[in-house]
Amino acid sequence: MAVYTEVSDEAVAEFLSEYELGGIVAFRGIAEGVENSNYALKTTTGDYILTLYERRVAPEDLPWFLELMEHLAERAIPCPRPVPGRDGASLRRLAGRHAAITTFLPGVWPRRVRLVHCAPLGEALAMLHLAGREYAPERSNALGPAAWPKLLAASSPGGDAVRTGLIGELRTALARILAAWPTGLPRGHIHADLFPDNVFFLEGKISGLIDFYFAATDLYAYDIAVCLNAWCFETDFSCNVTKSRALLRAYDAVRPLSAAEWAALPVLCQGAAMRFLLTRLYDWLNTPDGALVTRKDPIEYLRRLYFHLEARDEHAYGL
Amino acid sequence: MAVYTEVSDEAVAEFLSEYELGGIVAFRGIAEGVENSNYALKTTTGDYILTLYERRVAPEDLPWFLELMEHLAERAIPCPRPVPGRDGASLRRLAGRHAAITTFLPGVWPRRVRLVHCAPLGEALAMLHLAGREYAPERSNALGPAAWPKLLAASSPGGDAVRTGLIGELRTALARILAAWPTGLPRGHIHADLFPDNVFFLEGKISGLIDFYFAATDLYAYDIAVCLNAWCFETDFSCNVTKSRALLRAYDAVRPLSAAEWAALPVLCQGAAMRFLLTRLYDWLNTPDGALVTRKDPIEYLRRLYFHLEARDEHAYGL
Repeated sequence: MAVYTEVSDEAVAEFLSEYELGGIVAFRGIAEGVENSNYALKTTTGDYILTLYERRVAPEDLPWFLELMEHLAERAIPCPRPVPGRDGASLRRLAGRHAAITTFLPGVWPRRVRLVHCAPLGEALAMLHLAGREYAPERSNALGPAAWPKLLAASSPGGDAVRTGLIGELRTALARILAAWPTGLPRGHIHADLFPDNVFFLEGKISGLIDFYFAATDLYAYDIAVCLNAWCFETDFSCNVTKSRALLRAYDAVRPLSAAEWAALPVLCQGAAMRFLLTRLYDWLNTPDGALVTRKDPIEYLRRLYFHLEARDEHAYGL
Repeated sequence: MAVYTEVSDEAVAEFLSEYELGGIVAFRGIAEGVENSNYALKTTTGDYILTLYERRVAPEDLPWFLELMEHLAERAIPCPRPVPGRDGASLRRLAGRHAAITTFLPGVWPRRVRLVHCAPLGEALAMLHLAGREYAPERSNALGPAAWPKLLAASSPGGDAVRTGLIGELRTALARILAAWPTGLPRGHIHADLFPDNVFFLEGKISGLIDFYFAATDLYAYDIAVCLNAWCFETDFSCNVTKSRALLRAYDAVRPLSAAEWAALPVLCQGAAMRFLLTRLYDWLNTPDGALVTRKDPIEYLRRLYFHLEARDEHAYGL
């Protein structure tokens, strides 16, 4: 559920008066999303999204995210475009939070990933990477490899209660991943969280890429590895290599992968599985009973990690 | 949070193909509401609401609710109007649930009730009561006075842990309420749950009355009593008699209250406070830890009940 901060009707009306968006028509909380509070805002000029940034997003990063979205939208990437107020500022304050209005994107996110989704996704990801090249400011990946040992340490007390021997197993795997972590691969701005609920489809085409609040400057191929984890595993945790092949080929057709990137795919996929495993494990252990958020099972990513640890090269992913 | 049942994109597309509503443009879960799963559905012909009925709504009651909404909408009450499929049926099945599409209503519900909301609310409630008169089928109020002793008994084990002596106090109050419960007052179809989050305002006027899934055939003045509880108390649980006077006078101007209805206001308000106290208490004791629903504090209605038990006549409400 994604409304943590309730905004009064008067406060919204006053906030909206700072924009040239017409009068308010409707204002409803959106159930999707877990990090921020999102509202569907309809005005006399159309549909918009109002986001209130909650504590997990560092306020100093917000201009970087919003300007990246603006940069990408100008280059025809279908991402939310920040809407400035009359004074030209997109980032404002509402109900004690940083807040921004962005454009509304049509489409429906795939609750169940099918093969037809994977090639459009790969293509869109490559186009996203290319479109971000001239955006100069960088943001280091706060949830990248350097953060994983600390995340694992934070979950070590209590982690074995989730699964016997889990923490030791993760320590071994993490040491192996970090020792093999590639250097020198092409890097730039990545989405870093392009799960199915962040991708809208309309009539078989991608109509929206949303939720850029984990975006960072990191290895492009790591972004592919995140998508392989998120889009190409079945509910029994088997890797669907038809899906991964479609995703990889479509990506490669837009931004050809180097030999070093192909070779690094298994360890990048291990790392991506580790990243989601560690944050889910942390949340699993630290979400209070009665919280509004549904905890996601970390073990789903342990199952994926096993697959990637067995992968010898890119052929494991259907190539 | 109000998405308990996830609907796949393919299932929605197939469901929509049974309607003459055009193609799907967007489909997002709505955060508001606690009983059913609600989705904002945008198609090439406009905005709609898709509701999946969850376990608290008895399937056999659904035609009564939907036909009441249709009846009221035909008489210019701004309530959601069921949209029939090509075969003429509004009530269908989706994702293992009963489901219906209704029209989208503009407006924003007041997060903080102000005096300006109360007269329009009273007027709209009276118009709702008058508009329902020719709707012949009846539905007994499953959460009316006859249900309260059972509800109290269901919360008796554990209830005193919420507040020392609570169950004994409620037993005494309930006996007094039931002994004084009026007979012979005007009755008809009532909303029975017209809280601020079920009422949309647009430019100072009421633009939507929603969520008819507690509607029933019962005393009209009991519906007023529900509204007095829900709209006219401040956060310190004091009754704002300026608000209650505005609500009552506006109602009375549309459907004049009889002397017997005026006289019964205190006990009806006691009963309405008891009804929400008892269901909140039951939910408080029976909502599992980690559930998606925020539990509402039952004691807020005990504070209101105290006020109503002290009320000698309608003058306590500002008349």
